[in-house]
Order: sequence, then C-alpha cells, then structure tokens
Amino acid sequence: MVSHIHPKVSLIGAGPGDPDLLTIKGMKALQEASVVLYDALVDESMLDLAPKNALKVYVGKRAGQHSFKQEEINQLIVDYAFSHGHVVRLKGGDPFIFGRGHEEMIWAQKSGVEVSIVPGISSCYSLAELQGIPLTRRRVSESFWVLTATTREGKLSDDIALAAQSSATVVILMGMRKLGKIVNEFQTVGKNDTPVMIIQNGSRPDEKVVTATVDTIETVVEEEKIGAPAIIVVGKVISLEKLQKKVYQYQMSEN
Amino acid sequence: MVSHIHPKVSLIGAGPGDPDLLTIKGMKALQEASVVLYDALVDESMLDLAPKNALKVYVGKRAGQHSFKQEEINQLIVDYAFSHGHVVRLKGGDPFIFGRGHEEMIWAQKSGVEVSIVPGISSCYSLAELQGIPLTRRRVSESFWVLTATTREGKLSDDIALAAQSSATVVILMGMRKLGKIVNEFQTVGKNDTPVMIIQNGSRPDEKVVTATVDTIETVVEEEKIGAPAIIVVGKVISLEKLQKKVYQYQMSEN
Repeated sequence: MVSHIHPKVSLIGAGPGDPDLLTIKGMKALQEASVVLYDALVDESMLDLAPKNALKVYVGKRAGQHSFKQEEINQLIVDYAFSHGHVVRLKGGDPFIFGRGHEEMIWAQKSGVEVSIVPGISSCYSLAELQGIPLTRRRVSESFWVLTATTREGKLSDDIALAAQSSATVVILMGMRKLGKIVNEFQTVGKNDTPVMIIQNGSRPDEKVVTATVDTIETVVEEEKIGAPAIIVVGKVISLEKLQKKVYQYQMSEN
Repeated sequence: MVSHIHPKVSLIGAGPGDPDLLTIKGMKALQEASVVLYDALVDESMLDLAPKNALKVYVGKRAGQHSFKQEEINQLIVDYAFSHGHVVRLKGGDPFIFGRGHEEMIWAQKSGVEVSIVPGISSCYSLAELQGIPLTRRRVSESFWVLTATTREGKLSDDIALAAQSSATVVILMGMRKLGKIVNEFQTVGKNDTPVMIIQNGSRPDEKVVTATVDTIETVVEEEKIGAPAIIVVGKVISLEKLQKKVYQYQMSEN
C-alpha cells in the first residue's frame, strides 16, 4: 500500500484564554489536524475542534511530570508530520511573541515540512482591551512597548529601564517574579504615581484584575494574592474610563 | 405592539485583511448583528457572516464621497443600537490599537448602550509574523515598540527618536508619508545598516513586501511603488530566516 503523506505543520496562536478568541483560520486548521501538540496555556475545549481520531499530545509543563525541552518539541513536530501528515502546534497567545514559534518554524522547514503560520490574539494588548483600556490614546499615550522580564537568569532586561524612561505605555509579560525590580525602575525615574494594572488569567473564568500605582502595586498584589500567569501594564492609559460590565436593559414601545 | 430592544454594540477587530483572521467570537457576533458599521480596511466578504436582512453601513473613507467624522460614527452606533438592537462595529486590525475604539466605547456607555469588545489580530505583529519574522527572538531582540507616525500634523512623534535609540524592534503604523523623517532618526543614531521590512496590504491578495536597510529603504520603496496602507518594521529580526512559501510534497510508502 502506498499512502501519500504531506508533512505539514500549522503554528497556531490560541489567543489569551477564551476559546472563542481563536481565529476562524485556526479553527479550520484544527478541524483538519491529524495531530495536535498543545501547551499549558491552551484551553482544552479547543481540542474538541479537532477530529475525534486525531492524536492530542500535551507538551506543556505540568507539576511532577516530564516536561518537554524545546528541542524535543521541535523534533516531535517533524516526526509526527512525517508519520501522520498535518500537525497543529497550538500555542497560547501568539506563537511569535515570546513564543519560540520561530524556532519551531525553522526546524520544521529544515526538515522538509511545510509550515503555515496562523497568528493569535496576543495577551500583550488584548487583556487590557477586554477591561476597556487601550494601550494608546490620543493625547495620553502615543505608543506602547512590549517586553519580557525573564530573558536572562537573575538579571532584569536592560530594556525595562529604558522603557520606564520613555513615554510609551509599558507592557511586561512573564514579569511577576521580578515585580519588585520592575517597580524600582519606575521609581528611579520618579514615576511613583503612574498607574499600573495587573491581569492574571486574563479572559478566563478565573481572571483577576488589580489596579494601583507604581508605589502601591506590590502591596495590592500581596493582599489580593495575584500570581503568574499575568501581564503588567504601566502607563497613564490605565486611568482612562474602563468597560462597565453591567448589562443595560431598555424597553421601547412602538405602534 | 411592544418590542424589547436591547441596545448593544460589539466593537470587533476584523484583523489585518484575510477574512479568516477574524476570531470565532467576532464571527458569532456578526451572525447576530442587526446593523454592521464597517471601515475601509475591512474585507467585505466578512459582511456575508451577518444575517441577510441586517443593515450594512460603510463608514470609512472613500474618494469623492462624504466621509464620516468620528463624532458622527459615535452617534450612529448609539442611534442604531436604540432603533435596531445589536450593532456590530467592525474595524480593521484591532479596535483599540490606534483605532479610536475606546472613544466609541465611552460614547456608547454614556448613552446607555451595552458594550462588548472583541479584540482583533493586530497588524503590528501579525504581518511580519506571516512572513516568518518574529518581533522578538532570544539573543536578537528582547522587546518591541509600536508607534504611529501621524499623531500630530506635520511633526514626527518624539517617541520615534527614542525608539530608534532603543534596542527594541520598532514597528511604525501609518508611517509611509513620513518615511524620510523616520529614516533620518535611525541614521542619526548610526543605524544605517539596520534591516527594514515594509508590508503593504498585508495578508490580502495584493500584498507587497520589501526588505532593505535604513539607508536603502527609500529607494526600494520608490522602485517597487510601495504605498499606504503599510507597516514599517525596523530591527535585526528582519534578517532572521523567513517563511518559505513553496509547498513540499513528500511520498511515503507503507507495508
């Protein structure tokens, strides 16, 4: 028997959490998947979009279990593509924003696997937005700067000191463990009263949001027991009017 | 006859162009729309997702016709919500990234209209990504800064000079008319050889992509006749390996 296998990987961004924030393109790729390799921050209900007989393989970190190294994931993608055909690599947020999707793309390409990329809604702007906060707003902030705090072991990224000096809205991903150091950078440039918002588990049922200032955010985080995964947003835009989540009911009479 | 009208607006990001880059949440809202107010950069095939009898109103700019002021759009949203119920405000990219969606949210809320926000895939990261270029990459760039060039008439945003000095990948939206001034800022800090990518009509059938350096990009833009709408990305990440778009065919034999 000869079977025609077309080795292919779709690198898909699952968005920030809410499964309906996946794109239509991502949904269609999942519907045609032979194998799905998915991460820790992916809502598992998305897996139901894939065919029942598709292989679903968890490759994220889980306490007490083997966690895959990046090199192992790269190779799994290629192996499954050649053995099964269409591999969907489903990653939280967007696969190319601090997501190592580019490494997966290169590895697959070098191995002769066709690659397709499906961007996802990044948490860097969408989580503040879902609270009604824009990262930019005329006459308040004209730009935004997205950083990670965890690029080098034990050392805060130099970019964060520069960002604190800038007029940009600053968004820090993976920064909760270094919140104290981040706060220091803003205090050093006199931004003690600049507002800060932290969103944990954004767009999920267990979402938690706190708002404070640079000087008070650490106390609030401790009181409210906020932890990772969370994004930190610093800037005047946080003081803008937020989304009111109560529902209006209005009754009109017609003749 | 008494009819129960629930005045509501969904502010939806349509994504960068490809209609399949709309989210599932955006699709569901369109399917329940009574009125759709849509912009210039929205692919009109998305309107087919709305019910046939839904009102579809174009509020973008079109040569030779009346173009709506922001205040008029704000009021149209409210008026249609009270007369028809569910208004979908469909905006190119993401509604909160340089999109004035926040102004529409505030106006609707103040008028007693329920607001729901559906983020869209922003062109600021997704268009480079669709070429296989990540805005961040370990040991190459640890952050990215998103700016607009057109905040004040005649004057380039001060943020662009700062961004040119930073180590961030710089993404400039709505910058084509000020490309010369933008180039000058990078030349002033000695970044003559830093790579630049410009993507016009990204993710659409008429997409055009050029890659050059700070020193050569203006010539390339002129030769290739690149114009708005386009995004400008400046940074070393542009030199990384890109997505190969050719399709592999591989045949395996099994027993």
